[in-house]
Amino acid sequence: MKPVAFQGVPGANSEVAAKKFFGPGVPTRPRETFEEVFSSVERGASAHGIIPIENSLAGSIHQNYDLLLKHRLTISGELSLRIEHALLAPRGTEFRSLRLVRSHPQALAQCSEFFRKHRTLRPVSYFDTAGAAKSISEEECAGTGAIANAYCARLYGLSILRKNIENRENNITRFLAISRKAGIVRRGREAKTSLVFVPARNEVGILFRILGAFALRNVDLVKIESRPDPESTFEYLFYADLAGSPAMTNVANALAQVREMTTLCRILGVYERGNRGTR
Amino acid sequence: MKPVAFQGVPGANSEVAAKKFFGPGVPTRPRETFEEVFSSVERGASAHGIIPIENSLAGSIHQNYDLLLKHRLTISGELSLRIEHALLAPRGTEFRSLRLVRSHPQALAQCSEFFRKHRTLRPVSYFDTAGAAKSISEEECAGTGAIANAYCARLYGLSILRKNIENRENNITRFLAISRKAGIVRRGREAKTSLVFVPARNEVGILFRILGAFALRNVDLVKIESRPDPESTFEYLFYADLAGSPAMTNVANALAQVREMTTLCRILGVYERGNRGTR
Repeated sequence: MKPVAFQGVPGANSEVAAKKFFGPGVPTRPRETFEEVFSSVERGASAHGIIPIENSLAGSIHQNYDLLLKHRLTISGELSLRIEHALLAPRGTEFRSLRLVRSHPQALAQCSEFFRKHRTLRPVSYFDTAGAAKSISEEECAGTGAIANAYCARLYGLSILRKNIENRENNITRFLAISRKAGIVRRGREAKTSLVFVPARNEVGILFRILGAFALRNVDLVKIESRPDPESTFEYLFYADLAGSPAMTNVANALAQVREMTTLCRILGVYERGNRGTR
Repeated sequence: MKPVAFQGVPGANSEVAAKKFFGPGVPTRPRETFEEVFSSVERGASAHGIIPIENSLAGSIHQNYDLLLKHRLTISGELSLRIEHALLAPRGTEFRSLRLVRSHPQALAQCSEFFRKHRTLRPVSYFDTAGAAKSISEEECAGTGAIANAYCARLYGLSILRKNIENRENNITRFLAISRKAGIVRRGREAKTSLVFVPARNEVGILFRILGAFALRNVDLVKIESRPDPESTFEYLFYADLAGSPAMTNVANALAQVREMTTLCRILGVYERGNRGTR
Protein backbone atom coordinates (compact mmCIF):
# COMPACT_ATOMS: atom_id res chain seq x y z
CA MET A 1 0.00 0.00 0.00
CA LYS A 2 1.60 3.24 -1.12
CA PRO A 3 1.72 6.08 1.39
CA VAL A 4 -0.08 9.43 1.44
CA ALA A 5 2.36 12.35 1.31
CA PHE A 6 1.93 15.43 3.51
CA GLN A 7 4.01 18.50 4.33
CA GLY A 8 5.46 18.72 7.83
CA VAL A 9 6.84 16.50 10.57
CA PRO A 10 4.95 13.43 11.86
CA GLY A 11 1.94 14.58 13.87
CA ALA A 12 1.26 17.64 11.69
CA ASN A 13 -2.40 18.48 11.16
CA SER A 14 -2.01 17.43 7.51
CA GLU A 15 -1.16 13.91 8.70
CA VAL A 16 -4.22 13.92 10.97
CA ALA A 17 -6.31 14.95 7.92
CA ALA A 18 -4.76 12.16 5.83
CA LYS A 19 -5.69 9.54 8.44
CA LYS A 20 -9.20 10.93 8.75
CA PHE A 21 -9.69 10.92 4.99
CA PHE A 22 -8.01 7.63 4.02
CA GLY A 23 -8.49 5.72 7.30
CA PRO A 24 -6.40 5.50 10.49
CA GLY A 25 -4.22 2.67 9.12
CA VAL A 26 -3.02 4.46 5.99
CA PRO A 27 0.77 4.78 5.73
CA THR A 28 1.94 8.40 5.51
CA ARG A 29 5.06 10.05 4.14
CA PRO A 30 6.25 13.36 5.63
CA ARG A 31 7.80 15.79 3.14
CA GLU A 32 9.57 19.08 3.83
CA THR A 33 7.76 21.20 1.26
CA PHE A 34 4.43 21.24 -0.58
CA GLU A 35 6.37 21.01 -3.86
CA GLU A 36 7.80 17.67 -2.67
CA VAL A 37 4.29 16.44 -1.79
CA PHE A 38 3.20 17.10 -5.38
CA SER A 39 6.29 15.55 -6.95
CA SER A 40 6.05 12.48 -4.73
CA VAL A 41 2.52 11.82 -6.03
CA GLU A 42 3.51 12.67 -9.61
CA ARG A 43 6.42 10.20 -9.57
CA GLY A 44 4.16 7.52 -8.11
CA ALA A 45 6.18 7.23 -4.87
CA SER A 46 3.02 8.22 -3.00
CA ALA A 47 -0.52 7.14 -3.87
CA HIS A 48 -2.00 10.51 -2.91
CA GLY A 49 -1.11 13.77 -1.27
CA ILE A 50 -2.98 15.82 1.33
CA ILE A 51 -2.59 19.60 1.21
CA PRO A 52 -4.26 22.43 3.13
CA ILE A 53 -6.03 24.80 0.71
CA GLU A 54 -7.75 27.30 3.02
CA ASN A 55 -8.16 28.11 6.67
CA SER A 56 -11.07 29.92 8.27
CA LEU A 57 -8.69 32.37 9.99
CA ALA A 58 -5.75 32.61 7.59
CA GLY A 59 -7.51 32.35 4.21
CA SER A 60 -6.69 30.58 0.94
CA ILE A 61 -3.20 29.21 0.46
CA HIS A 62 -2.30 30.63 -2.95
CA GLN A 63 0.93 28.64 -3.03
CA ASN A 64 -1.03 25.39 -3.22
CA TYR A 65 -3.31 26.79 -5.95
CA ASP A 66 -0.10 27.64 -7.85
CA LEU A 67 1.16 24.08 -7.41
CA LEU A 68 -2.20 22.68 -8.59
CA LEU A 69 -1.81 24.76 -11.77
CA LYS A 70 1.83 23.79 -12.22
CA HIS A 71 1.46 20.04 -11.71
CA ARG A 72 -0.83 17.73 -13.66
CA LEU A 73 -2.54 16.17 -10.66
CA THR A 74 -6.24 16.28 -9.88
CA ILE A 75 -8.19 17.04 -6.72
CA SER A 76 -9.80 13.73 -5.73
CA GLY A 77 -11.47 14.70 -2.46
CA GLU A 78 -11.83 17.27 0.31
CA LEU A 79 -11.98 17.27 4.09
CA SER A 80 -12.46 20.00 6.66
CA LEU A 81 -10.66 19.61 9.96
CA ARG A 82 -11.19 21.61 13.12
CA ILE A 83 -7.79 22.66 14.45
CA GLU A 84 -7.69 21.87 18.16
CA HIS A 85 -4.87 22.76 20.49
CA ALA A 86 -3.91 20.62 23.49
CA LEU A 87 -1.30 21.28 26.16
CA LEU A 88 1.18 18.40 26.11
CA ALA A 89 4.03 17.57 28.47
CA PRO A 90 6.41 14.64 29.16
CA ARG A 91 4.66 11.90 31.11
CA GLY A 92 4.54 12.47 34.85
CA THR A 93 4.67 16.27 34.51
CA GLU A 94 2.17 18.07 36.72
CA PHE A 95 0.39 21.12 35.37
CA ARG A 96 1.56 23.34 38.24
CA SER A 97 5.22 22.47 37.61
CA LEU A 98 5.06 23.77 34.01
CA ARG A 99 6.83 27.05 33.27
CA LEU A 100 7.47 27.20 29.50
CA VAL A 101 5.16 26.21 26.65
CA ARG A 102 6.57 25.79 23.13
CA SER A 103 4.56 26.09 19.96
CA HIS A 104 4.21 27.87 16.64
CA PRO A 105 3.57 31.61 17.21
CA GLN A 106 0.16 31.30 15.49
CA ALA A 107 -0.89 28.47 17.82
CA LEU A 108 0.37 30.44 20.85
CA ALA A 109 -1.66 33.44 19.69
CA GLN A 110 -4.73 31.22 19.25
CA CYS A 111 -4.40 30.22 22.93
CA SER A 112 -3.82 33.75 24.29
CA GLU A 113 -6.82 33.58 26.64
CA PHE A 114 -5.41 30.41 28.20
CA PHE A 115 -2.09 32.18 28.85
CA ARG A 116 -3.94 35.18 30.29
CA LYS A 117 -5.63 32.86 32.81
CA HIS A 118 -2.40 31.01 33.65
CA ARG A 119 0.13 33.76 34.24
CA THR A 120 2.89 31.41 35.41
CA LEU A 121 3.13 29.85 31.91
CA ARG A 122 5.43 31.56 29.45
CA PRO A 123 4.84 30.96 25.72
CA VAL A 124 7.98 30.18 23.71
CA SER A 125 7.94 30.41 19.89
CA TYR A 126 8.80 27.30 17.94
CA PHE A 127 8.76 26.81 14.17
CA ASP A 128 6.07 24.12 14.16
CA THR A 129 3.41 22.69 16.52
CA ALA A 130 4.21 19.00 15.91
CA GLY A 131 7.92 19.86 15.95
CA ALA A 132 7.46 21.47 19.40
CA ALA A 133 5.79 18.26 20.68
CA LYS A 134 8.63 16.19 19.22
CA SER A 135 11.27 18.44 20.82
CA ILE A 136 9.89 18.13 24.37
CA SER A 137 9.73 14.34 23.99
CA GLU A 138 13.40 14.27 22.98
CA GLU A 139 14.93 16.89 25.22
CA GLU A 140 13.23 15.93 28.50
CA CYS A 141 13.59 19.44 29.85
CA ALA A 142 11.63 19.66 33.10
CA GLY A 143 8.90 22.29 33.26
CA THR A 144 8.54 22.62 29.47
CA GLY A 145 5.35 21.71 27.62
CA ALA A 146 4.10 22.13 24.07
CA ILE A 147 0.88 23.12 22.32
CA ALA A 148 -0.02 20.71 19.53
CA ASN A 149 -2.86 18.38 18.53
CA ALA A 150 -3.82 15.39 20.70
CA TYR A 151 -2.49 12.96 18.06
CA CYS A 152 1.05 14.21 18.81
CA ALA A 153 0.64 13.04 22.43
CA ARG A 154 0.14 9.44 21.26
CA LEU A 155 2.86 9.71 18.61
CA TYR A 156 5.54 11.14 20.91
CA GLY A 157 4.49 9.46 24.19
CA LEU A 158 3.39 12.67 25.90
CA SER A 159 0.59 13.39 28.40
CA ILE A 160 -2.34 15.64 27.55
CA LEU A 161 -2.60 18.12 30.43
CA ARG A 162 -5.38 20.24 28.94
CA LYS A 163 -7.58 19.86 25.84
CA ASN A 164 -9.07 22.57 23.61
CA ILE A 165 -7.18 25.49 25.05
CA GLU A 166 -7.75 27.54 21.87
CA ASN A 167 -9.60 30.90 22.11
CA ARG A 168 -12.12 30.48 19.36
CA GLU A 169 -14.05 27.68 17.90
CA ASN A 170 -14.01 28.27 14.17
CA ASN A 171 -10.40 27.52 13.34
CA ILE A 172 -11.01 25.11 10.50
CA THR A 173 -8.68 24.05 7.73
CA ARG A 174 -9.94 22.63 4.46
CA PHE A 175 -7.64 19.96 3.02
CA LEU A 176 -7.60 18.52 -0.49
CA ALA A 177 -6.59 15.03 -1.53
CA ILE A 178 -4.50 15.19 -4.72
CA SER A 179 -3.99 12.20 -6.98
CA ARG A 180 -3.06 11.14 -10.47
CA LYS A 181 -6.56 9.76 -11.09
CA ALA A 182 -9.93 11.39 -10.52
CA GLY A 183 -11.79 10.68 -7.29
CA ILE A 184 -15.06 8.79 -7.01
CA VAL A 185 -18.35 10.47 -6.26
CA ARG A 186 -20.54 7.87 -4.55
CA ARG A 187 -24.15 7.40 -5.60
CA GLY A 188 -26.42 9.81 -3.74
CA ARG A 189 -23.57 12.15 -2.85
CA GLU A 190 -23.06 15.63 -4.23
CA ALA A 191 -20.21 16.38 -6.60
CA LYS A 192 -18.10 19.51 -6.44
CA THR A 193 -15.92 20.97 -9.19
CA SER A 194 -12.96 23.29 -8.57
CA LEU A 195 -11.66 25.54 -11.31
CA VAL A 196 -9.34 28.44 -11.96
CA PHE A 197 -10.09 31.01 -14.64
CA VAL A 198 -8.65 34.24 -16.05
CA PRO A 199 -11.13 36.63 -17.74
CA ALA A 200 -10.18 37.37 -21.35
CA ARG A 201 -10.71 41.10 -20.99
CA ASN A 202 -10.35 43.35 -17.99
CA GLU A 203 -13.69 45.08 -18.43
CA VAL A 204 -16.12 46.41 -15.87
CA GLY A 205 -18.68 43.68 -15.38
CA ILE A 206 -16.73 40.79 -16.93
CA LEU A 207 -17.03 38.79 -13.68
CA PHE A 208 -20.78 39.54 -13.61
CA ARG A 209 -21.10 38.07 -17.14
CA ILE A 210 -19.02 35.02 -16.22
CA LEU A 211 -21.10 34.39 -13.10
CA GLY A 212 -24.16 34.80 -15.31
CA ALA A 213 -23.10 31.71 -17.29
CA PHE A 214 -23.53 29.75 -14.04
CA ALA A 215 -26.44 31.63 -12.43
CA LEU A 216 -28.67 31.58 -15.52
CA ARG A 217 -28.30 27.77 -15.59
CA ASN A 218 -28.91 27.35 -11.83
CA VAL A 219 -25.33 26.25 -11.16
CA ASP A 220 -24.47 27.14 -7.56
CA LEU A 221 -21.07 28.71 -6.86
CA VAL A 222 -19.83 27.53 -3.48
CA LYS A 223 -16.67 29.62 -3.54
CA ILE A 224 -15.43 32.53 -5.61
CA GLU A 225 -12.22 34.40 -4.98
CA SER A 226 -10.15 36.83 -6.97
CA ARG A 227 -6.43 36.31 -6.66
CA PRO A 228 -4.54 39.46 -5.76
CA ASP A 229 -1.90 39.71 -8.45
CA PRO A 230 -0.29 43.11 -8.07
CA GLU A 231 2.22 42.18 -10.78
CA SER A 232 -0.06 42.38 -13.77
CA THR A 233 -2.49 45.24 -13.55
CA PHE A 234 -4.84 43.84 -16.14
CA GLU A 235 -5.05 40.19 -15.21
CA TYR A 236 -7.00 38.63 -12.41
CA LEU A 237 -7.04 34.98 -11.53
CA PHE A 238 -10.25 33.57 -10.05
CA TYR A 239 -10.75 30.46 -7.96
CA ALA A 240 -14.24 28.98 -8.09
CA ASP A 241 -15.88 25.89 -6.60
CA LEU A 242 -19.26 24.91 -7.97
CA ALA A 243 -21.86 22.36 -6.90
CA GLY A 244 -22.15 19.61 -9.51
CA SER A 245 -19.89 18.09 -12.13
CA PRO A 246 -19.27 18.60 -15.87
CA ALA A 247 -21.23 15.35 -16.37
CA MET A 248 -24.35 17.48 -15.78
CA THR A 249 -25.56 19.28 -18.91
CA ASN A 250 -26.09 22.65 -17.24
CA VAL A 251 -22.59 22.60 -15.71
CA ALA A 252 -21.02 21.52 -19.04
CA ASN A 253 -22.87 24.28 -20.93
CA ALA A 254 -21.96 26.89 -18.32
CA LEU A 255 -18.28 25.92 -18.57
CA ALA A 256 -18.43 26.11 -22.38
CA GLN A 257 -19.78 29.66 -22.13
CA VAL A 258 -17.17 30.60 -19.52
CA ARG A 259 -14.45 29.40 -21.92
CA GLU A 260 -15.69 32.01 -24.45
CA MET A 261 -14.90 34.75 -21.92
CA THR A 262 -11.63 33.51 -20.43
CA THR A 263 -8.03 32.97 -21.54
CA LEU A 264 -7.55 30.23 -18.96
CA CYS A 265 -10.24 27.94 -17.57
CA ARG A 266 -8.78 24.87 -15.93
CA ILE A 267 -10.72 22.28 -13.96
CA LEU A 268 -8.59 21.30 -10.95
CA GLY A 269 -10.78 18.35 -10.00
CA VAL A 270 -14.26 16.85 -9.70
CA TYR A 271 -14.83 15.18 -6.35
CA GLU A 272 -17.33 14.30 -3.67
CA ARG A 273 -18.38 17.25 -1.60
CA GLY A 274 -17.21 16.82 2.00
CA ASN A 275 -19.16 17.74 5.08
CA ARG A 276 -18.57 21.35 5.86
CA GLY A 277 -17.42 21.82 9.44
CA THR A 278 -16.49 18.16 9.92
CA ARG A 279 -14.94 17.67 13.31
CA MET B 1 3.68 63.08 17.00
CA LYS B 2 1.84 59.91 17.91
CA PRO B 3 3.31 56.62 16.69
CA VAL B 4 2.03 54.16 14.10
CA ALA B 5 1.36 50.73 15.64
CA PHE B 6 2.38 47.50 13.90
CA GLN B 7 2.49 43.82 14.84
CA GLY B 8 5.91 42.24 15.28
CA VAL B 9 9.38 43.11 16.49
CA PRO B 10 11.28 46.19 15.23
CA GLY B 11 12.35 45.60 11.64
CA ALA B 12 9.24 43.60 10.72
CA ASN B 13 7.91 44.13 7.20
CA SER B 14 4.89 45.91 8.73
CA GLU B 15 7.25 48.54 10.16
CA VAL B 16 8.90 48.94 6.74
CA ALA B 17 5.41 49.44 5.27
CA ALA B 18 4.58 52.04 7.97
CA LYS B 19 7.71 54.05 7.16
CA LYS B 20 7.04 53.83 3.43
CA PHE B 21 3.45 54.98 3.86
CA PHE B 22 3.83 57.69 6.54
CA GLY B 23 7.44 58.73 5.83
CA PRO B 24 10.82 57.44 7.08
CA GLY B 25 10.77 59.67 10.19
CA VAL B 26 7.43 58.46 11.57
CA PRO B 27 7.64 57.00 15.09
CA THR B 28 6.48 53.38 15.28
CA ARG B 29 5.14 51.22 18.10
CA PRO B 30 5.67 47.43 17.97
CA ARG B 31 2.78 45.36 19.39
CA GLU B 32 2.66 41.62 20.00
CA THR B 33 -0.69 40.93 18.36
CA PHE B 34 -2.93 42.45 15.68
CA GLU B 35 -5.63 42.88 18.33
CA GLU B 36 -3.25 45.15 20.27
CA VAL B 37 -2.56 47.17 17.11
CA PHE B 38 -6.30 47.85 16.76
CA SER B 39 -6.82 48.68 20.45
CA SER B 40 -3.78 50.98 20.50
CA VAL B 41 -5.33 53.06 17.67
CA GLU B 42 -8.80 52.90 19.23
CA ARG B 43 -7.53 54.18 22.60
CA GLY B 44 -5.65 56.98 20.87
CA ALA B 45 -2.23 55.75 22.04
CA SER B 46 -1.27 55.38 18.37
CA ALA B 47 -2.28 57.74 15.56
CA HIS B 48 -2.66 54.90 13.06
CA GLY B 49 -2.02 51.21 12.64
CA ILE B 50 -0.53 49.27 9.73
CA ILE B 51 -1.78 45.73 9.12
CA PRO B 52 -1.14 43.20 6.35
CA ILE B 53 -4.43 42.24 4.65
CA GLU B 54 -3.32 39.93 1.84
CA ASN B 55 -0.22 38.38 0.36
CA SER B 56 0.28 37.26 -3.22
CA LEU B 57 1.45 33.82 -2.04
CA ALA B 58 -0.42 33.27 1.23
CA GLY B 59 -3.79 34.93 0.46
CA SER B 60 -6.14 37.13 2.48
CA ILE B 61 -5.63 37.39 6.22
CA HIS B 62 -9.14 36.68 7.49
CA GLN B 63 -8.10 37.48 11.06
CA ASN B 64 -7.55 41.12 10.12
CA TYR B 65 -10.87 41.28 8.27
CA ASP B 66 -12.45 39.97 11.50
CA LEU B 67 -10.73 42.69 13.51
CA LEU B 68 -11.88 45.34 11.01
CA LEU B 69 -15.47 44.15 11.58
CA LYS B 70 -15.03 43.97 15.36
CA HIS B 71 -13.42 47.38 15.87
CA ARG B 72 -14.85 50.72 14.81
CA LEU B 73 -11.81 51.93 12.91
CA THR B 74 -11.66 52.81 9.23
CA ILE B 75 -9.23 51.93 6.45
CA SER B 76 -7.49 55.20 5.59
CA GLY B 77 -5.00 54.01 2.98
CA GLU B 78 -3.27 51.08 1.32
CA LEU B 79 0.25 50.17 0.28
CA SER B 80 1.70 47.16 -1.49
CA LEU B 81 5.19 46.10 -0.51
CA ARG B 82 7.44 43.64 -2.30
CA ILE B 83 8.85 41.23 0.28
CA GLU B 84 12.59 41.00 -0.31
CA HIS B 85 14.92 38.67 1.52
CA ALA B 86 18.54 39.54 2.25
CA LEU B 87 21.23 37.42 3.86
CA LEU B 88 22.47 39.25 6.95
CA ALA B 89 25.38 38.50 9.28
CA PRO B 90 27.31 40.22 12.08
CA ARG B 91 29.75 42.81 10.71
CA GLY B 92 33.04 41.38 9.57
CA THR B 93 31.55 37.96 8.75
CA GLU B 94 32.67 36.57 5.40
CA PHE B 95 30.18 34.71 3.24
CA ARG B 96 32.34 31.58 3.07
CA SER B 97 32.57 31.35 6.87
CA LEU B 98 28.76 31.11 7.24
CA ARG B 99 27.31 27.73 8.19
CA LEU B 100 23.83 28.34 9.67
CA VAL B 101 21.12 30.72 8.47
CA ARG B 102 18.18 31.53 10.75
CA SER B 103 14.79 32.71 9.56
CA HIS B 104 11.07 32.05 9.57
CA PRO B 105 10.33 28.71 7.84
CA GLN B 106 8.30 30.51 5.15
CA ALA B 107 11.21 32.85 4.35
CA LEU B 108 13.62 29.88 4.28
CA ALA B 109 11.29 28.09 1.87
CA GLN B 110 11.10 31.21 -0.31
CA CYS B 111 14.91 31.10 -0.61
CA SER B 112 15.17 27.35 -1.35
CA GLU B 113 16.96 27.89 -4.67
CA PHE B 114 19.62 29.93 -2.89
CA PHE B 115 20.18 27.07 -0.43
CA ARG B 116 20.31 24.57 -3.31
CA LYS B 117 23.15 26.60 -4.86
CA HIS B 118 25.01 27.02 -1.57
CA ARG B 119 25.09 23.55 -0.07
CA THR B 120 27.35 24.50 2.86
CA LEU B 121 24.61 26.73 4.33
CA ARG B 122 22.10 25.05 6.62
CA PRO B 123 18.71 26.73 7.14
CA VAL B 124 17.54 26.93 10.77
CA SER B 125 13.90 27.70 11.60
CA TYR B 126 13.18 30.78 13.70
CA PHE B 127 9.80 32.19 14.69
CA ASP B 128 10.23 35.50 12.90
CA THR B 129 12.49 37.06 10.22
CA ALA B 130 13.20 40.32 12.08
CA GLY B 131 13.54 38.32 15.30
CA ALA B 132 16.18 36.14 13.61
CA ALA B 133 18.12 39.26 12.60
CA LYS B 134 17.87 40.62 16.15
CA SER B 135 19.05 37.31 17.63
CA ILE B 136 22.26 37.13 15.57
CA SER B 137 23.08 40.74 16.50
CA GLU B 138 22.72 39.90 20.20
CA GLU B 139 24.24 36.44 20.40
CA GLU B 140 27.36 37.04 18.28
CA CYS B 141 27.57 33.37 17.34
CA ALA B 142 30.23 32.98 14.66
CA GLY B 143 29.13 31.40 11.42
CA THR B 144 25.42 32.19 11.90
CA GLY B 145 23.48 34.52 9.60
CA ALA B 146 19.83 35.42 9.18
CA ILE B 147 17.38 36.01 6.34
CA ALA B 148 15.39 39.22 6.82
CA ASN B 149 14.77 42.50 5.03
CA ALA B 150 17.58 44.98 4.38
CA TYR B 151 16.10 47.45 6.90
CA CYS B 152 16.95 44.97 9.69
CA ALA B 153 20.64 45.26 8.75
CA ARG B 154 20.61 48.98 9.52
CA LEU B 155 18.46 48.53 12.63
CA TYR B 156 20.57 45.79 14.19
CA GLY B 157 23.99 46.83 12.87
CA LEU B 158 24.43 43.84 10.58
CA SER B 159 26.09 43.43 7.18
CA ILE B 160 24.14 42.56 4.05
CA LEU B 161 26.03 39.64 2.45
CA ARG B 162 23.51 39.01 -0.36
CA LYS B 163 20.41 40.84 -1.55
CA ASN B 164 17.25 39.42 -3.11
CA ILE B 165 17.96 35.78 -2.49
CA GLU B 166 14.24 34.90 -2.80
CA ASN B 167 13.14 32.38 -5.46
CA ARG B 168 10.33 34.29 -7.04
CA GLU B 169 9.52 37.84 -7.73
CA ASN B 170 5.85 38.21 -6.94
CA ASN B 171 5.87 37.93 -3.16
CA ILE B 172 3.90 41.07 -2.42
CA THR B 173 1.99 41.99 0.70
CA ARG B 174 -0.81 44.53 0.67
CA PHE B 175 -0.97 46.57 3.87
CA LEU B 176 -3.79 48.79 5.13
CA ALA B 177 -3.50 51.90 7.25
CA ILE B 178 -6.22 51.91 9.91
CA SER B 179 -7.31 55.05 11.72
CA ARG B 180 -10.10 56.62 13.70
CA LYS B 181 -10.75 59.18 10.95
CA ALA B 182 -11.26 58.62 7.23
CA GLY B 183 -8.27 59.03 4.92
CA ILE B 184 -7.90 61.72 2.28
CA VAL B 185 -8.22 61.08 -1.43
CA ARG B 186 -6.14 63.71 -3.19
CA ARG B 187 -7.46 65.59 -6.20
CA GLY B 188 -6.88 63.62 -9.40
CA ARG B 189 -6.36 60.33 -7.56
CA GLU B 190 -8.68 57.37 -7.67
CA ALA B 191 -10.71 56.36 -4.65
CA LYS B 192 -11.24 52.80 -3.53
CA THR B 193 -13.95 51.46 -1.23
CA SER B 194 -13.65 48.25 0.79
CA LEU B 195 -16.76 46.48 2.05
CA VAL B 196 -17.93 43.27 3.63
CA PHE B 197 -21.37 41.86 2.89
CA VAL B 198 -23.50 38.82 3.72
CA PRO B 199 -26.20 37.89 1.17
CA ALA B 200 -29.69 37.84 2.74
CA ARG B 201 -30.61 34.50 1.20
CA ASN B 202 -28.45 31.59 0.21
CA GLU B 203 -29.91 31.20 -3.26
CA VAL B 204 -28.30 30.10 -6.48
CA GLY B 205 -27.35 33.28 -8.30
CA ILE B 206 -27.60 35.68 -5.34
CA LEU B 207 -23.97 36.76 -5.88
CA PHE B 208 -24.69 37.26 -9.59
CA ARG B 209 -27.57 39.62 -8.68
CA ILE B 210 -25.43 41.48 -6.13
CA LEU B 211 -22.62 41.92 -8.67
CA GLY B 212 -25.28 43.11 -11.12
CA ALA B 213 -25.98 46.08 -8.84
CA PHE B 214 -22.39 47.15 -9.51
CA ALA B 215 -21.90 45.96 -13.11
CA LEU B 216 -25.12 47.53 -14.46
CA ARG B 217 -23.92 50.90 -13.10
CA ASN B 218 -20.36 50.49 -14.44
CA VAL B 219 -18.86 50.19 -10.96
CA ASP B 220 -15.63 48.18 -11.23
CA LEU B 221 -14.99 45.47 -8.63
CA VAL B 222 -11.25 45.28 -7.96
CA LYS B 223 -11.51 42.36 -5.53
CA ILE B 224 -14.18 39.85 -4.65
CA GLU B 225 -13.72 36.97 -2.28
CA SER B 226 -16.05 34.60 -0.49
CA ARG B 227 -15.01 33.80 3.05
CA PRO B 228 -14.89 30.10 3.77
CA ASP B 229 -17.08 29.68 6.83
CA PRO B 230 -17.55 25.96 7.31
CA GLU B 231 -19.42 26.71 10.56
CA SER B 232 -22.62 28.03 9.06
CA THR B 233 -23.68 26.17 5.95
CA PHE B 234 -26.04 28.87 4.80
CA GLU B 235 -24.05 32.02 5.35
CA TYR B 236 -21.24 33.35 3.25
CA LEU B 237 -19.27 36.46 3.96
CA PHE B 238 -17.91 38.38 0.99
CA TYR B 239 -15.04 40.85 0.84
CA ALA B 240 -15.20 43.35 -2.02
CA ASP B 241 -13.08 46.30 -3.10
CA LEU B 242 -14.53 48.65 -5.69
CA ALA B 243 -13.13 51.52 -7.70
CA GLY B 244 -14.73 54.80 -6.64
CA SER B 245 -16.37 56.13 -3.50
CA PRO B 246 -19.93 56.44 -2.16
CA ALA B 247 -19.66 60.15 -3.00
CA MET B 248 -20.25 59.07 -6.63
CA THR B 249 -23.93 58.62 -7.51
CA ASN B 250 -23.52 55.28 -9.29
CA VAL B 251 -21.56 53.81 -6.35
CA ALA B 252 -24.08 55.14 -3.81
CA ASN B 253 -27.00 53.73 -5.80
CA ALA B 254 -25.26 50.37 -6.26
CA LEU B 255 -24.63 50.14 -2.51
CA ALA B 256 -28.28 51.00 -1.80
CA GLN B 257 -29.37 48.14 -4.05
CA VAL B 258 -26.84 45.76 -2.47
CA ARG B 259 -28.31 46.62 0.95
CA GLU B 260 -31.70 45.30 -0.30
CA MET B 261 -30.09 41.88 -0.89
CA THR B 262 -27.80 41.59 2.15
CA THR B 263 -28.14 41.20 5.92
CA LEU B 264 -24.79 42.88 6.50
CA CYS B 265 -23.15 45.46 4.24
CA ARG B 266 -20.43 47.36 6.02
CA ILE B 267 -18.05 49.84 4.42
CA LEU B 268 -14.62 49.26 5.96
CA GLY B 269 -13.13 52.41 4.47
CA VAL B 270 -12.87 54.82 1.53
CA TYR B 271 -9.29 55.67 0.65
CA GLU B 272 -6.87 56.58 -2.10
CA ARG B 273 -6.03 53.71 -4.36
CA GLY B 274 -2.36 52.79 -4.00
CA ASN B 275 -0.06 51.78 -6.81
CA ARG B 276 -0.41 48.09 -7.39
CA GLY B 277 2.95 46.39 -7.25
CA THR B 278 4.67 49.33 -5.56
CA ARG B 279 8.22 48.45 -4.72
